Amino acid sequence: MSKLRIGILGAGHIAHRWMSDARTVNEAEITCVAARELPRAQAFAERWDIPNAVGGYQALVEHPEVDAIYVATPHPMHYEHTLLAINAGKHVLCEKPAALNAVELGRMQACAKERGVFLMEAMWTRLFPAVQRAKELLAEGEIGELRGLRAQFCYDSPFDPASRLFNKALGGGALLDVGCYPIAFALDMFGCAPDQITGAAHIGDTGVDERNTISLRFPGGGVAMLASAVRMAMPIEAVLYGETGTLHVPDFYHPDRLLLERDGQTAVVFEQPYVPQGFAFELRHVCQCVNAGLLESPRMSHGDSMAVMRVMDTLRAQWGIVYPGEEASCPS
Amino acid sequence: MSKLRIGILGAGHIAHRWMSDARTVNEAEITCVAARELPRAQAFAERWDIPNAVGGYQALVEHPEVDAIYVATPHPMHYEHTLLAINAGKHVLCEKPAALNAVELGRMQACAKERGVFLMEAMWTRLFPAVQRAKELLAEGEIGELRGLRAQFCYDSPFDPASRLFNKALGGGALLDVGCYPIAFALDMFGCAPDQITGAAHIGDTGVDERNTISLRFPGGGVAMLASAVRMAMPIEAVLYGETGTLHVPDFYHPDRLLLERDGQTAVVFEQPYVPQGFAFELRHVCQCVNAGLLESPRMSHGDSMAVMRVMDTLRAQWGIVYPGEEASCPS
Repeated sequence: MSKLRIGILGAGHIAHRWMSDARTVNEAEITCVAARELPRAQAFAERWDIPNAVGGYQALVEHPEVDAIYVATPHPMHYEHTLLAINAGKHVLCEKPAALNAVELGRMQACAKERGVFLMEAMWTRLFPAVQRAKELLAEGEIGELRGLRAQFCYDSPFDPASRLFNKALGGGALLDVGCYPIAFALDMFGCAPDQITGAAHIGDTGVDERNTISLRFPGGGVAMLASAVRMAMPIEAVLYGETGTLHVPDFYHPDRLLLERDGQTAVVFEQPYVPQGFAFELRHVCQCVNAGLLESPRMSHGDSMAVMRVMDTLRAQWGIVYPGEEASCPS
Repeated sequence: MSKLRIGILGAGHIAHRWMSDARTVNEAEITCVAARELPRAQAFAERWDIPNAVGGYQALVEHPEVDAIYVATPHPMHYEHTLLAINAGKHVLCEKPAALNAVELGRMQACAKERGVFLMEAMWTRLFPAVQRAKELLAEGEIGELRGLRAQFCYDSPFDPASRLFNKALGGGALLDVGCYPIAFALDMFGCAPDQITGAAHIGDTGVDERNTISLRFPGGGVAMLASAVRMAMPIEAVLYGETGTLHVPDFYHPDRLLLERDGQTAVVFEQPYVPQGFAFELRHVCQCVNAGLLESPRMSHGDSMAVMRVMDTLRAQWGIVYPGEEASCPS
């Protein structure tokens, strides 16, 4: 099969991290990178040995050597940049969260379908072999009925009103930045969207949620307790509590093993060498999907992204967090 | 000081567990036990070497050799039995939850104040030296500002519609039975009532919450993630996440040690020999309070009980759980 030729839209921190893995994926070829200012794109291209660098995003999405775009700008720009790529007929892998809210996301997904291009939210953690194995173990009944799930994605960043994390205009706050991980994980493990969505959040001086805890209930009777924070240290971990056992995913951000606890015994049931960033699994998956002619990923479908977004919209409505520009089309 | 003479109201499971500790408390003397049927009270008295046994509760609260009543009946009866004791001029230690809702609790507290008797909810876990030491460590700044708290009190009981746990008429469900523990613990550690209270619950076939997760926010900006269940196995544990460290209370139901995690190092900062039931700390505290002429416990005051009850009322209103008899004076 031919290599998928990828253009990177945005040359910031996440693009660098992603690139360090992407270059190891044989199924893909990174052919172009774009930044608003050409020198920044050129520096990125030089650092990672990418043949083309362009200034401005229109030039990228129209580049003849690009089949798919990796959108790596801050989340308030995902909507605009994804639409730009879709309208140029390019496939899109868009960083998480794929949009600010369900209204934006719905338009992006409708547009992608209309143009017949692949669109996937870069919920790369779902592609880890350990996470996929956890789902299989559940399906195989290794812990019986899944009754409860706990997942936390928190870190403690020094308060800095200028930082993207705390800047409301840049979509700051814990929920959108990292809360989407435990939410996406919970929905993945329960295999459906929750029918009760509540949470509590501390809103800091800049108007964004610095830390939160989330309570979900799922149609089958399972419950989840989640937390996310940009200003609270808690271990990144997930635990699945089943009827007959407990499955631990010690670091579900970079999971390299699974532990099964049953009848008082704990055993490692999956192990994999540590993978530096983990984006390779995601990119390989995107290449496979596009090569197979799929328009959605079976592991992070349009519906999956929408379900996660609806949880976040519901929580933000409870917490009163409205981002600039959202006032007119307020979530939910 | 003279021994506090205690009468036990109710001769069921919890009364037996409590008694096994109470007999070790020198400051108290268990002088009488009552059950609805005299033979049951007599059997209890014989088992624990108690001088008096009576049939019916009126005889107990009027007994001349009784100064204080320990109310050990199921929670829907706490209101009636506590008022019975208060109206007979007796001090009361009432099992948790002290009432079904804040309306009942408010009347009980008002009545106790009016009659000038001591009234305390038997939130015995607050009296553990480890729990008191945890509060001190917080106050001493050992983990800096308290930002997050996680506490779970869950166990997996086989579903049995006839069991008290699942029987709505007997106040069944996880929240009232064990949810009050993590809630009371969180309010104790944050030192105030939460200003955001939300949760998700699975309501089982008998109409009670079999498992739940709870999200709280406190005025200072701290958040809590709690869980309780009568039909889901999760370890009973509590963890306090501070600005500069983490304090672990491994089994906050019977805490015998505290672990302080700071700068990547974990150290045991408190240890105490295991105490079989732990009710002795509570009873000794009640004796001290009564002897000091207090009408409320400084560790579980009327306001403390009311704050916990208001959290539970708020959650039940969200979950639509109304107990028989509550329809007229529905919580919140």
